[in-house]
Amino acid sequence: MQTVAVVGGGQLARMMAAPATALGIQLRILASDRQDAAAQVVVDSHYGAAKDAGALADLVWTAPRADVLTFEHEHVDLAQVKAVLAAGMPVRPGPQALRYAQDKLAMRQQLSALGIPCPRWARVVSAADIDQFCAQVGPAVLKRPRGGYDGKGVRCVTSCRDGEDWLGSELLIEEQVDFDREIAVLLARRPSGEIACWPVMETVQSQGVCSLVFAGAKLLGPAVVSAAVDIGRTIAAELDVTGVLAVEMFVQGERVLVNELAMRPHNSGHWTIDGCVTSQFEQHLRAVLDLPLGDTTMHAPVAVMANIFGGDGPLDATCVGGAAKVHVYGKQPRPGRKLGHVTCLGDEVAKVRAAAESAAHKVRSQL
Amino acid sequence: MQTVAVVGGGQLARMMAAPATALGIQLRILASDRQDAAAQVVVDSHYGAAKDAGALADLVWTAPRADVLTFEHEHVDLAQVKAVLAAGMPVRPGPQALRYAQDKLAMRQQLSALGIPCPRWARVVSAADIDQFCAQVGPAVLKRPRGGYDGKGVRCVTSCRDGEDWLGSELLIEEQVDFDREIAVLLARRPSGEIACWPVMETVQSQGVCSLVFAGAKLLGPAVVSAAVDIGRTIAAELDVTGVLAVEMFVQGERVLVNELAMRPHNSGHWTIDGCVTSQFEQHLRAVLDLPLGDTTMHAPVAVMANIFGGDGPLDATCVGGAAKVHVYGKQPRPGRKLGHVTCLGDEVAKVRAAAESAAHKVRSQL
Repeated sequence: MQTVAVVGGGQLARMMAAPATALGIQLRILASDRQDAAAQVVVDSHYGAAKDAGALADLVWTAPRADVLTFEHEHVDLAQVKAVLAAGMPVRPGPQALRYAQDKLAMRQQLSALGIPCPRWARVVSAADIDQFCAQVGPAVLKRPRGGYDGKGVRCVTSCRDGEDWLGSELLIEEQVDFDREIAVLLARRPSGEIACWPVMETVQSQGVCSLVFAGAKLLGPAVVSAAVDIGRTIAAELDVTGVLAVEMFVQGERVLVNELAMRPHNSGHWTIDGCVTSQFEQHLRAVLDLPLGDTTMHAPVAVMANIFGGDGPLDATCVGGAAKVHVYGKQPRPGRKLGHVTCLGDEVAKVRAAAESAAHKVRSQL
Repeated sequence: MQTVAVVGGGQLARMMAAPATALGIQLRILASDRQDAAAQVVVDSHYGAAKDAGALADLVWTAPRADVLTFEHEHVDLAQVKAVLAAGMPVRPGPQALRYAQDKLAMRQQLSALGIPCPRWARVVSAADIDQFCAQVGPAVLKRPRGGYDGKGVRCVTSCRDGEDWLGSELLIEEQVDFDREIAVLLARRPSGEIACWPVMETVQSQGVCSLVFAGAKLLGPAVVSAAVDIGRTIAAELDVTGVLAVEMFVQGERVLVNELAMRPHNSGHWTIDGCVTSQFEQHLRAVLDLPLGDTTMHAPVAVMANIFGGDGPLDATCVGGAAKVHVYGKQPRPGRKLGHVTCLGDEVAKVRAAAESAAHKVRSQL
């Protein structure tokens, strides 16, 4: 039996449990405590901080030693990860790739060097830098290079007044793209180079957090899809990504610009559990173990995923039957926190969206 | 969070883990030891014998107490189950139904009383009884009423000489039906009475054990499907079954005769994990908790499941990629033992069957 060691105990590791069970793969996670989303359902749970070298060593070397180390988030210490790799443990994605998921400035530098279209951007360290960029480019987005997620560490600025309290370390500033829509490319790549891509998705964010995802071969124009997939494949190959890669992009007409990327299963791909022959969670396990990848065909022409956010009370995932596929993460409710998602399949986008949103609302309203 | 307590730690309980996780249901099992198929992947595993009253009490009453007791096999002590029910724990299916899944003679008596078509049958206790039945009916099947599965406790007889070593307690004897095909009806019923049925399946047995299952709306004639579904619904309602019910049947022309029944997820329904919006494992959890049932629509016109049997060495579930969905059970290989299954989906039966059989063979041949 092969063992996959995963840094992180959140919902992404939790959703790896089902395909690991099916394939007879031992899933071993590094969680922070027993209440973590994944620790509730993974027998081989280890506990510790993601940046604790001892916890990392325990995770990978405890007998039977892991076959590969992977991640459900990028908040790790790259030097520690390199040490694990140097000691002989396969690490996928490897540190040479993972740094671009950790550091948005490094990512922008590398993508620009590869000629991949990005919003205009600059590295800024002073109020004058911010003002100069805004004067040239207009409304901008200031980003902390590390540690952000779900809109955290990101701020809209029109001058240094909106961002000077963040100064003191280097920051990334980008043009605020006036996009028509946001899309995401999801793919998996194994060390041998094989890549499998899911259909390109449209994503909708509310207050910086993904709220809806639409998938379907006919939802986006072929030129946009082709450009987006080319970019995704290029990034995967050039950055030597192994495992799942999600690339979030802005679309302006037929122009596609890279926004962010993640080297792990991603919120934009949760619909693949119920909507595809192979889910992103199964595929991540396959890819990091360098196994044959699974088929990414959709089960229906359209899939819509709606996130379930915390309100004032507990969820009731089980109040919804029928065709809505509800997944909850076992997390303590907090207003605005992602607590689960719903996927619906069908033929017509409007109907499928209404079904998914209605189910998500119902699950959240059972107070 | 609701807790479902399951007697048994085999592959059926193992395959309940994924939907329990998705729905935020705590799955608690009674396994025999840590090597059991389900115990490997279920955090809340209890250990003991299925017929040990103390183990059963521990399973259901340990805090937080379970919300319902259910089963992945019927090898339980009905008096103990009744005691749990009398102490206030919902038991689904209830003992009044479960007895018909435990005792084939009681099942035949009850189905005949309900006017449900069965093979000709008799209760026999002596060599003369067996000879008399065979003289009247021809080649027959002698069955031990309790404890059999996968062809165990079943023997073909033409006279008492073939079965007299089993005499000493009452036996069931049935005509050997010269069937055209074998089918199975799979449905779930909740206490409120709601029933959801999957498409009727054709099953193929090899040496008394299910080897292949075919599902698809157009595989069987409408008269057979209609008769089979009527029988399934009648049994579910008349026997007050709650949870999943599988009814195996013989087809002769357009005539349908009940062979066996099981009140739990069943091998004939494993394809529903990958082939339907709602799997039999999710539906069983929903039904025993009296929750709204899920949609049983298929993802494709045809699904074929091939069982993976033990050979001389270990399996490698992960050698197969593409569209074949492999599930292994973590069981020690033994020749002939069910170790996993593969499901494939598609449009044409012959192609889908070939894909499923080829994948099953490949998984088994990685020695």
